[in-house]
This record gives sequence, structure tokens and C-alpha cells, in this order.
Amino acid sequence: MTRVLHELHGRDGHRFSPYCWRTIMALKHKGLDFERAPMKFTDRAAIAPSGQDRVPVLVDGERWVHDSWAIAEYLEDTYPDAPSLFGGAMGRAQARFFNKWVDMSVHGRLRALVVPDTFKHAHPDDSDWFRESREAMFGMKLEDMRGDVDALKADLHATLEPLRATLETQPYLCGEAPAYADYIFFGSLMWQRCSSPLKLFDAGDPIPPWRARLLAAFDGYAGEAPGYET
Amino acid sequence: MTRVLHELHGRDGHRFSPYCWRTIMALKHKGLDFERAPMKFTDRAAIAPSGQDRVPVLVDGERWVHDSWAIAEYLEDTYPDAPSLFGGAMGRAQARFFNKWVDMSVHGRLRALVVPDTFKHAHPDDSDWFRESREAMFGMKLEDMRGDVDALKADLHATLEPLRATLETQPYLCGEAPAYADYIFFGSLMWQRCSSPLKLFDAGDPIPPWRARLLAAFDGYAGEAPGYET
Repeated sequence: MTRVLHELHGRDGHRFSPYCWRTIMALKHKGLDFERAPMKFTDRAAIAPSGQDRVPVLVDGERWVHDSWAIAEYLEDTYPDAPSLFGGAMGRAQARFFNKWVDMSVHGRLRALVVPDTFKHAHPDDSDWFRESREAMFGMKLEDMRGDVDALKADLHATLEPLRATLETQPYLCGEAPAYADYIFFGSLMWQRCSSPLKLFDAGDPIPPWRARLLAAFDGYAGEAPGYET
Repeated sequence: MTRVLHELHGRDGHRFSPYCWRTIMALKHKGLDFERAPMKFTDRAAIAPSGQDRVPVLVDGERWVHDSWAIAEYLEDTYPDAPSLFGGAMGRAQARFFNKWVDMSVHGRLRALVVPDTFKHAHPDDSDWFRESREAMFGMKLEDMRGDVDALKADLHATLEPLRATLETQPYLCGEAPAYADYIFFGSLMWQRCSSPLKLFDAGDPIPPWRARLLAAFDGYAGEAPGYET
């Protein structure tokens, strides 16, 4: 059976979609092989059969699944004998909260810091689309977005405080070993790593060592993706 | 075997400690009987054997346990055949994050709204201590703490957005039934309910219906505590 992951690609193979990284890590966690189908923002014809226009889209044999959260649930339910992404019903329910926390409370704060750099790594064919869509979304020029970097970093730092405190008491968000909740936030850091040289964390912060362990996981799969050492 | 919960009591039986409510709900969830030992801020002699001076403190036969998170872990490990608080190792690990999120990201925002009213419900013997300790903690008079209520409520509302989004897709944080993560945030709302008439939520918000279900749980135990209908 062929398994295909439609995912976003930027310039020179830079893969900066946080949502695609969630799915990539989930597939790796489940030990499932997949082929990569790179997509550009300006050519989404390949994913039209999914009935919507966003990646990641997983095609598993005959089955099309879109939305990173829905894909994680699909993988957990379809491959129950492979390592669990959630560790049961309560783990899944709490991972849903964590997913929403990252999407709603963290990404808004990361975006202003990272998006101006992400633009530079958008696929050449996507550059105009990227600029226009992001400037419309934020109501300002990309060049004006970052503003006071130190203030943005301080706000992000405060928002991540509960995560930092958790990683000071246990090696992974999911406990002794990583699972889906880890991959959710790891995807956000891959967005930064694959598109921005910005250093987000201070010395002594437990987040970079946690990230390093995930970069090294699955034979260093994520660590081999083109990006910046930060 | 006698099981005793040392917990904070205010004026006229108002019980506004969010941490004590976490433990009360955890004991109820496990179906464990307990006697209540009311404590005042200004008389902590009864909990001295715990080696520290904060409640909740659980005395389970010969065993003394303090700190609401440590008590939850103790109950889960000591009574594994009673209904689970965490649903396994991953559920426990993620509940630890949620615990820290409520403590570090939510309570700071709730505090300025609620503490001026909580003061009015402190035990008469604790009034002076409460005012002095809180005014020292915040560097301002209790009467100046609230400031712009609408701005504080808007900030709290934004912080709670991921929780709201979660409760729009599932009845409880822990899924189809409540468990410890639910009790963590429920404790925060009991703090408000047992000490402040402030209305925190708008019509249509999924948080009040979720709270109502927990107020009704365990034969309406929490709902019977002296407090405000908000």
C-alpha cells in the first residue's frame, strides 16, 4: 500500500510548516513509511481530492485525511498496535487541549518573530502569495511585523513558562518518552528552525535540550532537515 | 483507618482555596471518605507534622502528604483500583503541564479579579494577616488591585481561549468524563465562587455548563459549599 504525505515545501527544501511536522513525527512514532509529496502554496491541485486546500494531507491507500489533529487521531485508531500517540482516552483528550494551547496561545506570539524570516524561505513561486497573504492577515508590511524583538521574546517566554516548568520535572511532555503532545510543540520549533536564525531561548532553558532529543529521534530525521542551529 | 484533609476555611464556612478543592474532588473521584480539619492562615499548628505550612495536607492513616499535585499522585498510586485520576502515564504527564498552566498562566490573571473579594471572606481571625500578606505580595492596597475590571476580564478570557475551544469539542478536559485535569481548573472556579460575586463568563461560553456539571457531581458536593451563583 502506498502512503503519501502532502506537505509544504519552501525554497531549497526548507520545510517550515509546524502542522506538517506534527504529522511527520506522528508517522515516525507509529513506524509507518510514507512518501513525501511537496506542495507549494500556489499549486494545491494535488490535494483537491481532500475537499479543502491546506496541508498536511495524508493519503493512506484509498483513504484521504486532512488536518494534523484529525490525522493523529486517524493514525492512533487505524494502527492501534503501533506505539501509542496518546496513551489512552484521557491522554488524547488532554493532548487536544495542548494542541489548542499551542495553536491559540503560542503561535500568535511566535508568528511575529518568525514570519519575516519564513518569507525568505518560501518557495520562489510562492513569494508574492506569501507576502500578500501575510500582510493582509496582520495588516502590516512583513518588514514592520517584528517591532520590538526583546518585548516579543519576553512575551513568548512568559507564555512558555508552564511548559518550561513541566520539562524541568520530566524529560518529555508525555512523560518518560515522547508522544504526540511533544510533537505538537516540536512542530512549532521546526517552523522556527527551518526558516529563522533567531535564537529564542536562553542558556539553562530546558526547552532546547528537549528539542535536541527530538531532533535526534528516529535516526535524526528532523535534525537532517535544512534549517538553522539555534 | 481515619483519613483527614486539612483544608483552609474562611468566614462562615467559605472554602476558597483552589488547591484544597483539587484534593477534595480527587478524594471524591476515588470514592474515599475523609474528615475535614478546617485551618486558619493564622493557626497552622495542626499541619506542623507535614514539615511545611501550606494546605491541603492529607493524613491517610499514618501517612502525611502535602501539596495538591503530590496528593493526587499519592492517591492514584495508593488506590489504583479506584477510578483513575490520570488514565495512565501519558495522561498523568500531560496533567502536570495543565496543572502548571493553571498555576502560572491562569491564576495570576484571576487573582487581581478575585482577591479583593476573597479578603471579605477570610476568617475574621485571618483578616489582618490576609491583607498584609496580599498587599506585600502585590505591592499595592487590596482596594487598588482590581483596576480596570473589563481589561482584566478580557485578558483572562484570552488566556482561557484554548480551554474554551477544547470544551466546545468534548464535555470534559479529560474526555467523556471528568478526571484530575478537570478538577485542577474547577478548583480555580471554586476559589471565585466561594469568595466573589464577580461574573467571569459571557452567555454561550462552554465553561459555565462544564462547571455546572462538576458542581452537580458526587451528589452535588461542591455545589453545596457556601458561595455565589455566577
